[in-house]
Amino acid sequence: MTPRGGFISFEGIDGSGKSTQARLLAAHLEARGHAVVLTREPGGSPGAEEIRKLVLEGPPDRWSAETEILLFTAARRDHLERTIRPALAAGKLVICDRFADSTRMYQGLRGAGLRRMVDALHDLMIAQEPDLTLLIDMDPAIGLARALARQGGEERFESFGQSMQERMRAGFLDLAHSAPARIRVVDGARAQDRVAADVAAIVMAHLAGTDAA
Amino acid sequence: MTPRGGFISFEGIDGSGKSTQARLLAAHLEARGHAVVLTREPGGSPGAEEIRKLVLEGPPDRWSAETEILLFTAARRDHLERTIRPALAAGKLVICDRFADSTRMYQGLRGAGLRRMVDALHDLMIAQEPDLTLLIDMDPAIGLARALARQGGEERFESFGQSMQERMRAGFLDLAHSAPARIRVVDGARAQDRVAADVAAIVMAHLAGTDAA
Ligand SMILES: Nc1ncnc2c1ncn2[C@@H]1O[C@H](COP(=O)(O)OP(=O)(O)O)[C@@H](O)[C@H]1O
Ligand SMILES: Nc1ncnc2c1ncn2[C@@H]1O[C@H](COP(=O)(O)OP(=O)(O)O)[C@@H](O)[C@H]1O
Ligand SMILES: [Mg+2]
Ligand SMILES: [Mg+2]
Repeated sequence: MTPRGGFISFEGIDGSGKSTQARLLAAHLEARGHAVVLTREPGGSPGAEEIRKLVLEGPPDRWSAETEILLFTAARRDHLERTIRPALAAGKLVICDRFADSTRMYQGLRGAGLRRMVDALHDLMIAQEPDLTLLIDMDPAIGLARALARQGGEERFESFGQSMQERMRAGFLDLAHSAPARIRVVDGARAQDRVAADVAAIVMAHLAGTDAA
Repeated sequence: MTPRGGFISFEGIDGSGKSTQARLLAAHLEARGHAVVLTREPGGSPGAEEIRKLVLEGPPDRWSAETEILLFTAARRDHLERTIRPALAAGKLVICDRFADSTRMYQGLRGAGLRRMVDALHDLMIAQEPDLTLLIDMDPAIGLARALARQGGEERFESFGQSMQERMRAGFLDLAHSAPARIRVVDGARAQDRVAADVAAIVMAHLAGTDAA
């Protein structure tokens, strides 16, 4: 049986718990017998992971904002074609740690012109949204403290600081407001299992087609 | 003195003599005291060369046509920002071995939908044409024989065969017909120095602003 609307993404500021909640949700759904593909962006397919390396490694000015948007979009197109769509076609659930909303926020917050470019490029080359997006919302101070406690990897974007994270949070909430049928806001400033319980309830209702907002 | 219209590209089917003529033109212009940047696509800037490697290496089905178009556009954006525009701003002449017309032909010939995508992506993310394009035209049989005689590099696109090259030639001629002020057709089925003399005459007239077609 192909569950309806099986493409689910997690979004939110750095350290909000996206990766944690994506893993917990995957485990929850697998325990209930669903076939689940847990994936992430940028990356998520062999080609997209190579593009990810190109974008995230090197000095911050390695690429202009516009070139970066093009590279992220190339990675997303590959990820969609090679990982997400085949999994959905095989009746699997796809849980994606970040998707196009992250590009809207990270690149789009650099200016209205860039945001319009991101949107136009998305419409032209991607033209697909998740069926359901969980926005893990919280005060950036909490997210930042968690992020700093982590072992840093290639997290070039996390050097933006708190005022950027605050603009990001507001931007994500605006986005949720403009797409209420797709994006559900979850309070992330609680213990992991409390957040996970809310996420699971929203997702189970969504999959059952009885999504009582 | 900044010469007017200093962005010049070479286009044409494989083996038509683009790289040869680009080199000869650069030498001709340098001998006349012009500062010249000779560059090529895909590639032409450090970032674009890395993207070039990603696109041209590996098996033919490594990327879908759409992802490939995005990667070429990312490379072109980088090339424009980091090599072409700075050189033009410094008053140099830029001679580019292939530019957007090549993408229009190679990707666009795979179908009308892809061609529209190439054009829309160009308008959105590149929005610049060379001031003058030399289309080196010839019977594909001649070009193919020359190409096969070469030491093959990463020339994945050259395996298309003669009927593809014939469609490509016709496509380039259509393009020239639709943009006669920019694209000048040169008969490439002659000795190098004959071709080079025609190219030099067209370019000198163009730069002098007395471009008598
Ligand atoms: N509800 C929570 N309470 C406390 N710490 C959390 C919670 N959720 C995640 N963390 C921790 O916070 C850090 C960031 O979580 P992570 O899931 O990696 O966030 P994100 O993927 O959104 O950047 C990690 O060290 C994680 O273990
Ligand atoms: N006018 C010409 N006559 C004969 N051979 C040529 C001529 N122009 C170029 N060649 C040779 O043909 C081959 C292809 O030329 P090249 O400039 O690399 O073409 P392109 O860059 O268009 O693929 C090379 O081996 C080159 O030396
Ligand atoms: Mg994460
Ligand atoms: Mg060449």
